[in-house]
Amino acid sequence: MGDPSERNGHGALTRVLFCGPYWPASTNYTREYLQDYPFIQVDEVGLEQVPDVIHSYHICVVKNKRIDSDIIAKATQMKIIMQYGVGLEGVDVNAATEHKIKVARIPGSTTGNAVSCAEMAIYLTLGILRKQKEMDTAVNRKDLGVPVGDTLFGKTILILGFGAIGIEVAKRLRPFGVKILATKRNWSSDTLPSYVDELVDKKGGPEDMYEFAGEANIVIACMTLTSETIGIVDHKFVSSMKKGSYLVNIARGRLLDYKAVFDHLESGHLAGLGIDVAWMEPFDPEDPVLKFPNVILTPHVAGVTEYSYRTMAKSVGDTALQLHLGEAFTEVEFVN
Amino acid sequence: MGDPSERNGHGALTRVLFCGPYWPASTNYTREYLQDYPFIQVDEVGLEQVPDVIHSYHICVVKNKRIDSDIIAKATQMKIIMQYGVGLEGVDVNAATEHKIKVARIPGSTTGNAVSCAEMAIYLTLGILRKQKEMDTAVNRKDLGVPVGDTLFGKTILILGFGAIGIEVAKRLRPFGVKILATKRNWSSDTLPSYVDELVDKKGGPEDMYEFAGEANIVIACMTLTSETIGIVDHKFVSSMKKGSYLVNIARGRLLDYKAVFDHLESGHLAGLGIDVAWMEPFDPEDPVLKFPNVILTPHVAGVTEYSYRTMAKSVGDTALQLHLGEAFTEVEFVN
Repeated sequence: MGDPSERNGHGALTRVLFCGPYWPASTNYTREYLQDYPFIQVDEVGLEQVPDVIHSYHICVVKNKRIDSDIIAKATQMKIIMQYGVGLEGVDVNAATEHKIKVARIPGSTTGNAVSCAEMAIYLTLGILRKQKEMDTAVNRKDLGVPVGDTLFGKTILILGFGAIGIEVAKRLRPFGVKILATKRNWSSDTLPSYVDELVDKKGGPEDMYEFAGEANIVIACMTLTSETIGIVDHKFVSSMKKGSYLVNIARGRLLDYKAVFDHLESGHLAGLGIDVAWMEPFDPEDPVLKFPNVILTPHVAGVTEYSYRTMAKSVGDTALQLHLGEAFTEVEFVN
Repeated sequence: MGDPSERNGHGALTRVLFCGPYWPASTNYTREYLQDYPFIQVDEVGLEQVPDVIHSYHICVVKNKRIDSDIIAKATQMKIIMQYGVGLEGVDVNAATEHKIKVARIPGSTTGNAVSCAEMAIYLTLGILRKQKEMDTAVNRKDLGVPVGDTLFGKTILILGFGAIGIEVAKRLRPFGVKILATKRNWSSDTLPSYVDELVDKKGGPEDMYEFAGEANIVIACMTLTSETIGIVDHKFVSSMKKGSYLVNIARGRLLDYKAVFDHLESGHLAGLGIDVAWMEPFDPEDPVLKFPNVILTPHVAGVTEYSYRTMAKSVGDTALQLHLGEAFTEVEFVN
């Protein structure tokens, strides 16, 4: 594979840039994984500084930084733009391709990311069914035995997007005594498990989502954010949901139309909202949507577990080592 | 069965007493269930007033009132003392027997109580694994991607007490990718499902609990409170648990020894505590144990769901009707 310093054109050091201060464990665990390899340097810089320093890096770990064509034009030594996870919606992949930069994601099904996100989906669903904020209020008021919560048992649940996360959500929901509906673009995908018919009671395409919403008590958004899915949970969709139903989002904040969700919370049509992701991140803690007593927001940590973060640190670390050593890449999926 | 007014010795009215203001939905749902039966009167009185009024009631629904021999001696018309659920630890059953009063519980496996409690156990477990309070702090500080949580996936879980609730907990934990240990006095019980070996990886008796604790990452207490189990999660037990393990209690507060739990939270031996039940109820919201960042308390609502409360209201209502009409009791299990 040739001399790595020649391949990288920068001597003996391969430099990895983590964009921004958020998800700090991604940087820390990657540094820890690479601590015995002094020829890999891992830096974290503030979001504002990224354009000024990106020219000296070979790998960029995006996190929530928008990597547009202007920034990519400055990334003159860049070989790989990658995500600490799966979501690449902030990366201008076409611009990267033009500049001969590969764009990669770490597959969620093998790293524990999907498993972690699925557990969070169950947590948020139970949290809104049990009225987490009202429970806290009751404890503080020395009330007992209130509020009256709701069970998962007996409910119908619609999983929007039946990829790696949706599958793990369905597996975990099954023994709760629920009916599971799911929508997916392509059900003939070979990434589906052989026992998919045991997991899903009713399968549909994107065109079925409104009808399915009318049958469901709980909708869990597990879709990738694309130009087709942005704002897909809009007024038409939310008003198709049953009165008194619940909405959970562990995927990307902008799958949901803010106004549609807000209005249906205000009218009481939505009984609860549990989200790990928001429209802007970090989200304003004073935003009016958080004032509803049955809205729970967590700080975009669905995939942030010891298990998935250590596994993904290995993926980033091995990718850096493979780039440095000119070896084949084993840990990532390239999208360009 | 004779004339009901003669049987009850009180004319045409059967009177049901709910003790105390807590779990208010129990009274409300029972009243609603009985609204077409004016010959059943449902009253709720304050805890302090119970001794003064109990003489005029035929059925007493205990909730968290201690019904001792002094109170029972005053219950001159009482036929049935019952619980809105399963826990009868506050009732002096011997004194009731002496006074020819039947003591009853509503079986949890048929009313949704066990299912509801099991869902709460999963919620509390995920809540402490994900560091609920730290997530709230992160949202309020506009942090993103912290804290790093922990998954259920890969963990070993010890269920203390494998009754109706423990079984439902195990069913729901199974697809999370965990190893399940459980202790139970009598594994030959005919209340166990036929597929128990698929639910539990390792079965033990009470004598095995310390050894099992040493293997578990998470302990979930699902036991009945008796003279044998009070304080069973004591210093010996908690120190037998792995360093960094988690403790959940959805059964009765006094199963746990306060000081043992407090000391092991303080030392960091326990990584988290999730409890729906406390040592005194309602629990002082300023109690030092709640100051630890990884302690979650909910207001004794594990069984308080629409589903279980409506089903239990039917059990209480039907019991009152059956008493009034002199019919056989179909909804309750008598313990004396």
